[in-house]
Amino acid sequence: MNETARVQPIEWLGDRVRILDQTLLPGRIEYIDTGDYRVVADAIRRLCVRGAPAIGVAGAYGAALGALALKNGDSDTFLKEFNSILGFLASTRPTAVNLSWALSRVEAAARRPRTIPEIKEAVVAEAQAIQRHEEEATDRLSRYGADLIGDGFTVLTHCNAGSLATCGCGTALGVIKAAKAQGKKLHVFATETRPLLQGARLTAWELVQERIPVTLITDSMAGHFLSKGTIDAVVVGADRVAANGDVANKIGTYSIAVLAGENGVPFYVAAPLSTIDLAINSGKDIPIEERNHAEVTHIAGVRLAAEGVEVANPAFDVTPAKHVSAIITERGVVRPPYSPRLERLFGPELETKA
Amino acid sequence: MNETARVQPIEWLGDRVRILDQTLLPGRIEYIDTGDYRVVADAIRRLCVRGAPAIGVAGAYGAALGALALKNGDSDTFLKEFNSILGFLASTRPTAVNLSWALSRVEAAARRPRTIPEIKEAVVAEAQAIQRHEEEATDRLSRYGADLIGDGFTVLTHCNAGSLATCGCGTALGVIKAAKAQGKKLHVFATETRPLLQGARLTAWELVQERIPVTLITDSMAGHFLSKGTIDAVVVGADRVAANGDVANKIGTYSIAVLAGENGVPFYVAAPLSTIDLAINSGKDIPIEERNHAEVTHIAGVRLAAEGVEVANPAFDVTPAKHVSAIITERGVVRPPYSPRLERLFGPELETKA
Repeated sequence: MNETARVQPIEWLGDRVRILDQTLLPGRIEYIDTGDYRVVADAIRRLCVRGAPAIGVAGAYGAALGALALKNGDSDTFLKEFNSILGFLASTRPTAVNLSWALSRVEAAARRPRTIPEIKEAVVAEAQAIQRHEEEATDRLSRYGADLIGDGFTVLTHCNAGSLATCGCGTALGVIKAAKAQGKKLHVFATETRPLLQGARLTAWELVQERIPVTLITDSMAGHFLSKGTIDAVVVGADRVAANGDVANKIGTYSIAVLAGENGVPFYVAAPLSTIDLAINSGKDIPIEERNHAEVTHIAGVRLAAEGVEVANPAFDVTPAKHVSAIITERGVVRPPYSPRLERLFGPELETKA
Repeated sequence: MNETARVQPIEWLGDRVRILDQTLLPGRIEYIDTGDYRVVADAIRRLCVRGAPAIGVAGAYGAALGALALKNGDSDTFLKEFNSILGFLASTRPTAVNLSWALSRVEAAARRPRTIPEIKEAVVAEAQAIQRHEEEATDRLSRYGADLIGDGFTVLTHCNAGSLATCGCGTALGVIKAAKAQGKKLHVFATETRPLLQGARLTAWELVQERIPVTLITDSMAGHFLSKGTIDAVVVGADRVAANGDVANKIGTYSIAVLAGENGVPFYVAAPLSTIDLAINSGKDIPIEERNHAEVTHIAGVRLAAEGVEVANPAFDVTPAKHVSAIITERGVVRPPYSPRLERLFGPELETKA
């Protein structure tokens, strides 16, 4: 078993949760070990845990810790306080829908039992079920996606959509790992992903561990290598997919999608159903998180930008569905038109990939 | 007179040259004061002086220092040694054609006089003439370009094509400053320009000094803001323009050009004639410099990328002419078809902008 398989982004320890502090990677491997849901919320906000599926799992465990800490009084008071904790956890990050998806699941689980000890047990069990569900979903979508990756392909990815982002094998990186497991020889180009360098720090680290050759580039080089014919396919993850197939993902994804299309390179989005938000018709309605400006002006704690500048720091952008060649899910690969095809995925499961 | 106008990237001091060390900006203002052409070559290679027109001027002064240091022996030996110095200076950076353009000019100047003291004098005079020529050319092209910028425009620029890059008022930033001088209210979006952050360090600094509002973004955000309708025009400089209008410029320029076109935003290249290379038919033939990989893996001396990755670091890319709305020169604004219109610029000057 390799290093990344051993390093788990989130682990449930019975009455505490252990979160790998990804802000310190790859230099240091340190964990946040806590029984306090407020510490979990802070870890989500500070990106100690990040990536849409992992944020959902972390949120669910935060909710479990919140439930465990509440008094065993009457259940109305309990549920009122529990819902306030869910609201607090939901407010940490707005764009990835997995967080509200996971919190809705634990909220529903809390409404079923009668006694408070049973509610607590149900919430913990639901959080664990969410983690298992996400692990299985990414495994399955990775195998579907692997069929899109040819032997000898050079695959471009952006940000980190790997084990560290998903608890499982990853979405975009899961597809790449599954293609390698099919015996295909691959090379990955990873954008560094400014401002927080998840590509340079996390994706590069995961792929080195997996012994998949990886070339690190700045975000500004993606178009150049797409135009040179270096890249055979692009695979990225997603933070939220609207019903019409518009994709919110790490800032810079939209640019890569347009540049892939311009150069005839397929652009794939790997996203479990937990990332697809049928309640949102188009990408225009997806809230885009604006983060701290120091993420842009400072690197490694050093101010590099000139004093006196204004700064914009949207953490995500929206890629219109017309630029997306296919969306890879745990129920198969969906091609345009995404509406109503994405909606149909949520019906009874018709087939599973062995 | 403002700060950037006072801070000169290159100054000739009679028997020495003074080069502002731009690698230390905006934190520290320090100069390299030298009479040794090898120190000038090193300053060009390390990007203490950068920007196509400024590299040409620095190269010419390097040649002047080289000539002054040679013995007053026979002129055949002198010219042989002088040509070897020119070759050494030319080898420092391959992409910007201004360097070889300037060195050809001093080489031609050295061939005209008879005595070695006269040759030395002619070389120094030619280097000074090149600097004056570049200052005037950027002033003139800036006034032509300003007419393309509407009142209230938000202009996106990439890298630094300002005073620091040109000795004059700048090419891309010259256009913006001239539009402001026409009384137009402007806002600039500046990409930080990884890996070496010329946008965050230099462009932001110049514009803050000029009191032009500037918003700093990562390179990956340019597409997002183009798609949101935030940007009215893109203006960039160039390192070499081929006869067909293909443009080599800082890595990331191609991506911005494609994204501008996708969103119906005009994409302008501001380049003096010294940057246009009629000897090169298309961008495919422009040599692209590959720089040190530590520029990508390290920031401010700290390694941020995971160990074990491969790295690509092309310093420039080529934007095909079809993505360029116009090329702004000191002899007017050229629109497609660039061939033969660029070639015609090199004829006798027909008109000048007051």
